[in-house]
Amino acid sequence: MKIAYILYDGITTLDFIGIYDPVSRLRSMGFLPDLSWHLCAGQPKVKDHFGLEIIVDKVWPKLDGYDALVVPGGFGSRAMQQDKDFIKWLQTAGKDTLKISICTGSLLLGAAGFLKGKRATTHFADYQRLETYAKEVLREQIVDDGDVITAGAVAASLDLGLYLCQKWAGEGAMEKIAKSMNYKLVR
Amino acid sequence: MKIAYILYDGITTLDFIGIYDPVSRLRSMGFLPDLSWHLCAGQPKVKDHFGLEIIVDKVWPKLDGYDALVVPGGFGSRAMQQDKDFIKWLQTAGKDTLKISICTGSLLLGAAGFLKGKRATTHFADYQRLETYAKEVLREQIVDDGDVITAGAVAASLDLGLYLCQKWAGEGAMEKIAKSMNYKLVR
Repeated sequence: MKIAYILYDGITTLDFIGIYDPVSRLRSMGFLPDLSWHLCAGQPKVKDHFGLEIIVDKVWPKLDGYDALVVPGGFGSRAMQQDKDFIKWLQTAGKDTLKISICTGSLLLGAAGFLKGKRATTHFADYQRLETYAKEVLREQIVDDGDVITAGAVAASLDLGLYLCQKWAGEGAMEKIAKSMNYKLVR
Repeated sequence: MKIAYILYDGITTLDFIGIYDPVSRLRSMGFLPDLSWHLCAGQPKVKDHFGLEIIVDKVWPKLDGYDALVVPGGFGSRAMQQDKDFIKWLQTAGKDTLKISICTGSLLLGAAGFLKGKRATTHFADYQRLETYAKEVLREQIVDDGDVITAGAVAASLDLGLYLCQKWAGEGAMEKIAKSMNYKLVR
């Protein structure tokens, strides 16, 4: 399993880190020793919505070499939806690449054409905007429609991270990871 | 309100971002327009436990110019407890500076002497280690003992972030911020 985290200026860092933390534990806790990932962007560092700067591993790598893309949301997604180079880059993902988003990241999956014929979700203020791209917009925390998995706003990133742990390594692994994070599985 | 986020190699990024996201919304949503913060460390960039690199704003600034320190945990905290320069730096905080930690960050507050006579908490695997430093170790999510506020492991960072929103801007602000994050206030 090789993951590309897609970053850009103006992301909501918690959208990204809420998945990154539990999913990275799949490797550190020994459940998926071969798990690897890159932070990918169109530039060598990105600045989040509040000003925090993260260093990127790969600038515009071809995305068909990854098993999964993870696209966080954030105010910056509005500009990126219109950025032809960025959208073209997302489209370098393979047909079999799992496309995953949190919050308004789904609008970027949509702009790249990945939501055609798909059920999906997004930030609660953007359901209408998502209708342009998806077959059906669901007001749910996580929507899994095969090769596209989308989640709701910000805090849903932790739930999505644990959902992916369960999907990729089973319920036992997910429960141990949730426990290590002190995360109450009440939802 | 001026905050110093204390970073070091080997942090758990979610410990930091789980607070940073809701607290930063105090400014972006207009509740505390004068809120400001720096990411502070002993080096110009830090690498988290899983390899992610964050760019630091201020290298070893004197900490008595800040109203609050926020110290995240992570495996790296074990080395930092023994790092005399780092602990000496933490001790540059003022008497009136609010000392805040998540997870094993409390062991760093302890090593700096800030937990003398205080009740505090930490990661559930480190209660015993914290006893060296604190008057009383509580097995709670958040422990507020005046000028020292400590929280439990990783996911507690979001609860602590919202707790600080409530403390600094009131319950209405906190509830609006939780809603904007799609965070269910069930705990």
